[in-house]
Amino acid sequence: MDIGYFAAHEQYGPSKLLEHVERAENAGFDTVWTSDHIHPWWHTDAHCGAAWPWMGSALERTESVRVGTGVTPPIGRSHPGMIAQTFGTLGAMYPGRVHLALGTGEAMNEVPLGYEWPEYSERRKRLIDACEIITRLWDGEFTDYDGHYWDVNTMRLYTLPDEDARVPLLVAGNGPKTTTVAGRYADGFLTLRDVDFYHRVLEPALETGAEDAGRDPDTISRTRQLLISYDPDYDRALESTGFWRGPPAIGFDQEIYDPREIEAAGREMPIEEMADEFFIATDPAEIREQLARLENAGFDEVELLSSSPDQEKFIETMESEVLGRF
Amino acid sequence: MDIGYFAAHEQYGPSKLLEHVERAENAGFDTVWTSDHIHPWWHTDAHCGAAWPWMGSALERTESVRVGTGVTPPIGRSHPGMIAQTFGTLGAMYPGRVHLALGTGEAMNEVPLGYEWPEYSERRKRLIDACEIITRLWDGEFTDYDGHYWDVNTMRLYTLPDEDARVPLLVAGNGPKTTTVAGRYADGFLTLRDVDFYHRVLEPALETGAEDAGRDPDTISRTRQLLISYDPDYDRALESTGFWRGPPAIGFDQEIYDPREIEAAGREMPIEEMADEFFIATDPAEIREQLARLENAGFDEVELLSSSPDQEKFIETMESEVLGRF
Repeated sequence: MDIGYFAAHEQYGPSKLLEHVERAENAGFDTVWTSDHIHPWWHTDAHCGAAWPWMGSALERTESVRVGTGVTPPIGRSHPGMIAQTFGTLGAMYPGRVHLALGTGEAMNEVPLGYEWPEYSERRKRLIDACEIITRLWDGEFTDYDGHYWDVNTMRLYTLPDEDARVPLLVAGNGPKTTTVAGRYADGFLTLRDVDFYHRVLEPALETGAEDAGRDPDTISRTRQLLISYDPDYDRALESTGFWRGPPAIGFDQEIYDPREIEAAGREMPIEEMADEFFIATDPAEIREQLARLENAGFDEVELLSSSPDQEKFIETMESEVLGRF
Repeated sequence: MDIGYFAAHEQYGPSKLLEHVERAENAGFDTVWTSDHIHPWWHTDAHCGAAWPWMGSALERTESVRVGTGVTPPIGRSHPGMIAQTFGTLGAMYPGRVHLALGTGEAMNEVPLGYEWPEYSERRKRLIDACEIITRLWDGEFTDYDGHYWDVNTMRLYTLPDEDARVPLLVAGNGPKTTTVAGRYADGFLTLRDVDFYHRVLEPALETGAEDAGRDPDTISRTRQLLISYDPDYDRALESTGFWRGPPAIGFDQEIYDPREIEAAGREMPIEEMADEFFIATDPAEIREQLARLENAGFDEVELLSSSPDQEKFIETMESEVLGRF
């Protein structure tokens, strides 16, 4: 099973993230995932670097780790044709080292730029447009597509990786409808959901989508995003997850896009409830057990978004106590 | 006077451009300029990497050279808020080493993605929106802007360089109207026009724009883009400009966006006419003279888009015979 390191542009500046990523590669992490946002999930002490130029820097700084987003929203600000060009170029420069993951997004990525924030059903249709446009453009031919929302007119990408180093397209899903889209289009599937819900609801949806499209669902890789905070002191580990109270407080559907409002909602949430969101680890053995459980559940990869109080110590612990086992 | 190296995504793949840029920095070039397109200006043997992720790679690969676009069009595909975030992030990662140059664009950057191709007057208004939005966002405050076309809603950039390393905003102009916009907003002005037209038409327009905005026009840097082809054999130097017949053949205003059509129009143009578009140099002394002429005309920088038959030889000649004089 591959283990990924999540580079959170919300929590660290882009230069600090490059240092983390270089260290993570040396520690033995296989992949790097990065957030693709305009606004962060918090206001105080937050950052929000742009993912696309940062990915060029991160790939150039490192040697072998795969780098990709988790996730890029093709809803309003990012045209799927631009996404296809960006990730096609990175794939041409760093063959086999790039992935793209799409999702249905959040209001804070769109509304600050003056775009509407549509209902989920509309966002799902735009995601389907994006999957169609990106996969067709990556074939390297001139493409016309009259989408539900996104169009392309006789467009072609002139810079792409060779066919055998094609960039994998991943789709993130936390409910059955988006997961069905992943089954229809994606080379890989990504979720935040727990093992039980994954087996009970998401895997069948993924299989349904794949079968609708005449694909073998077993060819779709499965990645679990695990939110983690590690410190030998439990209270310290729990406390440092406070920065991430925004997502559980407001969810992914509401039209809240001002980080000050997201933070205000997050501060209403008792820190103890974050133990339901984050895996709080005080001992490397617990991390090994948790990863083994996810491996047994059939995941090909786990990406770790660490909000540990000491990020360097987390990476060091992963290197000395965990990564060699997977 | 600074001398810039133009990295043309149309003519070379992005990895080859990184090699050129690394070599150009070592040779003594001060800056790197890069094209920001979806479609190239030619079809046969053309490339078209994405500028934004490539800039991250180029800045990471090099040590001290300044890197920026020439030019980014804020017309349809690229929201000024996204542009502001992208260049703000690069500026935070590589302080003092990044610039942004805006222009009024070409149809091939917009129509393939399904965006309209508006008349010049409309594009100029969108350029003004972009200058307003980008400069306000780079102040680092929450910003609202109800533009002619582009809007932002309570948006803030959380990742920016320090105030003393603010990214310079350049505006490219080849006629007096856009040049007036440069005078109103830009830290730097960029043109392809010859010295006579620059003095007679563009400099007065730049001064008018600056005075309208209560600015001192002398604080605006001036850059000339010079198209060049160098080879000791004149015919060889001329011949290799053939790849660039698209821009003079169709200009910047027409709604032609298919590179096959641009190439077909370009092939109608006798190669001899390219001697009016490109500075054909057979001797380094001619390059030195031309650069001295532009320096005497008051330019602070010349950026060289070389379509020389041997790009490495061009860089080597610049290193040994030219760059030390400026």
